[in-house]
Amino acid sequence: MQNIDSYVEKNKDRFINELIELLKIPSVSADSAFKKDVLKTADEVKKSLEKAGCDHVEICETEGYPIVYGEKIIDKNLPTVLVYGHYDVQPADPIELWTSPPFEPVIKKTELHPEGAIYARGACDDKGQMYMHVKAMEFMTSTNQLPCNVKFMIEGEEEVGSVNLGKFVKENHEKLKNDVILISDTGMISKETPSITTGLRGLSYVEVEVTGPNRDLHSGLYGGAVANPINVLTKMIAALHDENNHITIPGFYDKVENLSDEERAQMAKAPFSLEDYKKALDIDDVYGEKGYTTNERNSIRPTLDVNGIWGGYIGEGAKTVIASKAFAKISMRLVPHQDWEEITQLFKKHFESLAPKGVKVLVKPHHGGQGYVTPIDSIGYQAASKAYEETFGKTPIPQRSGGSIPIVSLFEQELKSKTILMGFGLDSDAIHSPNEHFGIWNYLKGIATIPLFYKHFTELSKK
Amino acid sequence: MQNIDSYVEKNKDRFINELIELLKIPSVSADSAFKKDVLKTADEVKKSLEKAGCDHVEICETEGYPIVYGEKIIDKNLPTVLVYGHYDVQPADPIELWTSPPFEPVIKKTELHPEGAIYARGACDDKGQMYMHVKAMEFMTSTNQLPCNVKFMIEGEEEVGSVNLGKFVKENHEKLKNDVILISDTGMISKETPSITTGLRGLSYVEVEVTGPNRDLHSGLYGGAVANPINVLTKMIAALHDENNHITIPGFYDKVENLSDEERAQMAKAPFSLEDYKKALDIDDVYGEKGYTTNERNSIRPTLDVNGIWGGYIGEGAKTVIASKAFAKISMRLVPHQDWEEITQLFKKHFESLAPKGVKVLVKPHHGGQGYVTPIDSIGYQAASKAYEETFGKTPIPQRSGGSIPIVSLFEQELKSKTILMGFGLDSDAIHSPNEHFGIWNYLKGIATIPLFYKHFTELSKK
Repeated sequence: MQNIDSYVEKNKDRFINELIELLKIPSVSADSAFKKDVLKTADEVKKSLEKAGCDHVEICETEGYPIVYGEKIIDKNLPTVLVYGHYDVQPADPIELWTSPPFEPVIKKTELHPEGAIYARGACDDKGQMYMHVKAMEFMTSTNQLPCNVKFMIEGEEEVGSVNLGKFVKENHEKLKNDVILISDTGMISKETPSITTGLRGLSYVEVEVTGPNRDLHSGLYGGAVANPINVLTKMIAALHDENNHITIPGFYDKVENLSDEERAQMAKAPFSLEDYKKALDIDDVYGEKGYTTNERNSIRPTLDVNGIWGGYIGEGAKTVIASKAFAKISMRLVPHQDWEEITQLFKKHFESLAPKGVKVLVKPHHGGQGYVTPIDSIGYQAASKAYEETFGKTPIPQRSGGSIPIVSLFEQELKSKTILMGFGLDSDAIHSPNEHFGIWNYLKGIATIPLFYKHFTELSKK
Repeated sequence: MQNIDSYVEKNKDRFINELIELLKIPSVSADSAFKKDVLKTADEVKKSLEKAGCDHVEICETEGYPIVYGEKIIDKNLPTVLVYGHYDVQPADPIELWTSPPFEPVIKKTELHPEGAIYARGACDDKGQMYMHVKAMEFMTSTNQLPCNVKFMIEGEEEVGSVNLGKFVKENHEKLKNDVILISDTGMISKETPSITTGLRGLSYVEVEVTGPNRDLHSGLYGGAVANPINVLTKMIAALHDENNHITIPGFYDKVENLSDEERAQMAKAPFSLEDYKKALDIDDVYGEKGYTTNERNSIRPTLDVNGIWGGYIGEGAKTVIASKAFAKISMRLVPHQDWEEITQLFKKHFESLAPKGVKVLVKPHHGGQGYVTPIDSIGYQAASKAYEETFGKTPIPQRSGGSIPIVSLFEQELKSKTILMGFGLDSDAIHSPNEHFGIWNYLKGIATIPLFYKHFTELSKK
C-alpha cells in the first residue's frame, strides 16, 4: 500500500488528540453511576466511524449498553473483514494509586516509551487499540486503497461479560456475515518481538456470600461460640487449592488439554527473563501450580483467583465485631475444551460442599466465556503475519494469551469464521491496573500495520 | 434507703429524655471524622455530673480524647467508690442494617421489652449504663442519702483501647485512690436472672497486611503465575485454626488456666437454652473449639476472630484483577494469665512464618488488655449481691463474661483495688451491632439498684 508511513507521520498529532478526547469519557460499564458516560462514548465512536468513511453507521440498542455498527461494502464479491472492539473500560479504582487522574489523559515519556505513552484508563484496553482500526480505515478510504469490504462492531459491555453482544450476534448472522474477524484487544511480546495471539483462556466469574448469625455480633460475647463468616470464608477459599497449587474442585481438570512436550518446548523458546519479570513486579519469587513454568501457568493452565474479598469492619481503627456476612468475587481462567458453564456448576457444587454447619452459602454465577484457539495455517493468520513482517521486519511469534475475550468463541460458533488477534499492547501497559497506558509508538505502529492485513488477506483470498 | 422507687417513678421520663439527648451525639472514637462530637459528649457528661451533685468536676485532657473526672468527698474516714464508664461508642456501620438512624434515638416496644427499649448506638454500651450511675448519684445527693465518698472517671477511648486512660491512672494514684471500683459495662443473664460478672477476657487486636506484586494486575495475564495476596491471606488465616478449632499459634495456650470439672459443672448450672440461642441468631448449629460447651467457648476459653477483611475489587459488577494488597483486622480474646503483649508477639511471629515466598507480610499490633477475675468473697461483691437481692428479689449468679474491658486489670495493678461489674444489659441488646438498644426497664432497674450497692458497701466496710 502507498504512503502509509507518511500519512501516519502527517496525521499523528491528530490521531493522538482524537484518542485523548475519547479517553476523557469515563465509560465504566461495571458501575451504573457512569451510565451517561458509557452512552456518550458510543455516540463518539459512531461519529468517528462516519468520519473514517463508513457508509452506514448505526447505534444498535440492546437491553444493556448499545453496540456501534458501521460498514463499507465496496464489492459483494470481495472478502469482508469484521472488526470487533469495545468502548467500555474497567473501573479505575484503586484511584489513589494513579499518578494522574484516570480520565484526564496525559502523555509521559518512559524508558520503554521514549516517544511517550498516553496514561488513562482504557488507553490500551481497548479504546486505544480499537481506535487504531478506525484510523486505519480512515487511511484506506481517504487514499482510495480499501481492498475489501469492512464491518465494524464496537460494543460497550466487554468488561462485564458481553451478554447482550452475544444475543446481538445470534440475531444478526446475515448483517455480520464475514470472512474473518479482526480484533486488537491483546498484547505482543515486546516492541522488538511482535507476536500474534493464537489462544485465549475462558472465564468463569462468580460471587460468593457466606452468612452466619442474622446480625453482626460482639466478638467478646460470641467469639469462639458461633461460626465467624469471615473465618469460614477464608477456610473455604483456602481449600480451593492444594499444597501444590492444584485446584481441588472435583472434575475441574477433566477436559484440560495437555500439551505435548514438543509444544511446551516450542513455547519455552519465546524470549522471557524470570529475573526481569520478578523485578518488574517487585516480588522475591513467583508462585503457582507445581510442575509448570510461569509462561505455562498463565497461558495453557487453568487458574482460580480471588478478585475481591470483603466483610466486617474495614474502616479506620478497631471494631470488635463478628460480621453477619462475608463476600468474595472469584474468577477462574479456563483453557480450551473446558466449558465455562460446566465449570461454574462444578465450582458451585464444590464450594457449597465446603460450608460447615452454622453458615449458609450462596454462589452467584456472574458471567463467563469459552477459551479459544486459532490455527496458524489459516489465510487470516498468514495475512496478519505478513503485515507484521512488513512493519516490524520480523516474523511474529504465535502465542497463547492468559487473558479472555469470552465473545471470540461465540463468534466462531455463530458466524462460522475465525478471529485473528492482532494485539499491539505490552504486558507493562498495566491494563486493569492503576496507571494504565499505551505507547504512542505502539498506537501508530498498529495504525500502520492494520491496512497491510487487509491487503494481504484480500490477495490470499483470491488464490 | 428511702423512696428510691418513688424517686425513679417520678423522674423516669426526665431520666429517659436526658439519656436520649446524650445518645444523639455520635461519639465514635475509632473514626476521627467524629472528633468534634466525641469532645462535645465529654462536655455533656461534665455538666451531667455537676447536676448530679459532684463538688468538683473537670475535663482532664490527654493525648487523645479527654477523661471526665468528678468527685464528692463527704468524709475522709468513709470508704470511697470509684465509678468508671465510657462516653465513646462503637462505629455504627453497617449503617444500612439499622431500622432507625443510629444517632436518632427512638423508643420501641418489643416482646422482651414491653416497657420499651431505646434504640441507638451506645444506648447500652456504655452511655446508657454509665448514665445510670449519674442518675443514681443524683438520687443520693438530692435526698441526702449518699453514704460514702464517690469519684467518677468517664473516658472517651474505651472502644479504641483506653491507651491514654492507662497513662492517666498511672499518673494519678492519689487522685483516684478508692476502696472499690464500680463499673456497669457488662450484661446479666436475663431480666429474671440477675448476674454479676466475675471474669473478663483479655484482648489482643492486630491488623495484618499482605503485599504481593507492586501493583494491581490483570488476572488473565498474571493469574496463576504470581502469588495472589487475597488467596494467600485466606490460606494464612485458615491456618490459624486446626480441624478441631484449636488455635495453632505455638505457645498460645501455655498459660491458659484450665478450670476443674467442679468449676465447669458450676458454670453449667446457669440457665441456658441452646435451641433459643440458635433461634435468636438464626443459625442451624453452633461452631467452636472441640471439647467445650457454648458458654465455655465464650467465657473461659481464648478465641481468635477476624473482625474485618478487605482487598481487591469490592464494588458493583466484576473486575478481573489480582490485588497488590490484602488486609484483615484480627482480634484474640484471652483468658486470665495470658499476657496480651506476649500473645501479640506470638501471633506476629507465627503469622509471619505462614507467609509463602512471593508476598511480604506486615503485622501491626493495634491494642489490647489483660483478662480479669474478681473473687466472690470480697466486700464489694457481697455488697453488689445484696443490692440485687433487694431490687430483683433473687441472689445474682456469678458469671464470667467473654467480653473485655482491658483497663480493669490495670486498675487493680495501679490502684490496688478490686472492680465490681454490675451490668444491667442483655445479650439481645445488640451492642457493637446494628440496632443496639437498652431496655427502659433495665435502665431504671440499674438506677434503683446502684444506690443500694453504696449503702451495703459502706455498712460492710464498717464491720
